[in-house]
Amino acid sequence: MSQFDNVSVVKKANVYFDGKCVSHTVQFPDGTKKTVGVIFPSSLVFNTGAPEIMEINGGVCKVRLKGESEWKTYGAGEKFSVPGNSSFDIETVELLDYVCHFA
Amino acid sequence: MSQFDNVSVVKKANVYFDGKCVSHTVQFPDGTKKTVGVIFPSSLVFNTGAPEIMEINGGVCKVRLKGESEWKTYGAGEKFSVPGNSSFDIETVELLDYVCHFA
Repeated sequence: MSQFDNVSVVKKANVYFDGKCVSHTVQFPDGTKKTVGVIFPSSLVFNTGAPEIMEINGGVCKVRLKGESEWKTYGAGEKFSVPGNSSFDIETVELLDYVCHFA
Repeated sequence: MSQFDNVSVVKKANVYFDGKCVSHTVQFPDGTKKTVGVIFPSSLVFNTGAPEIMEINGGVCKVRLKGESEWKTYGAGEKFSVPGNSSFDIETVELLDYVCHFA
């Protein structure tokens, strides 16, 4: 599935980390939301409120969840889950294209 | 209107000018499309295929249409039209948040 159908899109972008992360919010009829976005090459720490699933559309990232010592690598077509009220370190050396699913 | 309703959104971003411009494509039930995106501080030349209307959500830009000598400045809530098969120069010194409407 390359697109989301029958959704609402917020016109204004979400810009984080001085522009290293840019996304747009997509709202679904069932009340859930996702963001579609990119991360430019960087090393960042994301904090979560709600649990998230990060789905990689393009690029590669190294991720370390809070409390873990191991870094894992994810590429296009892969995804990883992050608990709510937590955080993760993410490193990218090329543009990362992603969808973030919120529970 | 801060959002588009009942639309489709392409999951993967459009990335131009080495990341200086990032957008997502929104498709409407009537077959038209728009892009929602940002332009990072830069001086760029955009070529148009179809005619476009650029609507500014945030930030400020200076624009010079092809064949014109005058630069015009547009800010949040303003828009400008660009003919098809043409081009425009655009300069930004802060993040520009926009919607591009295609005819």
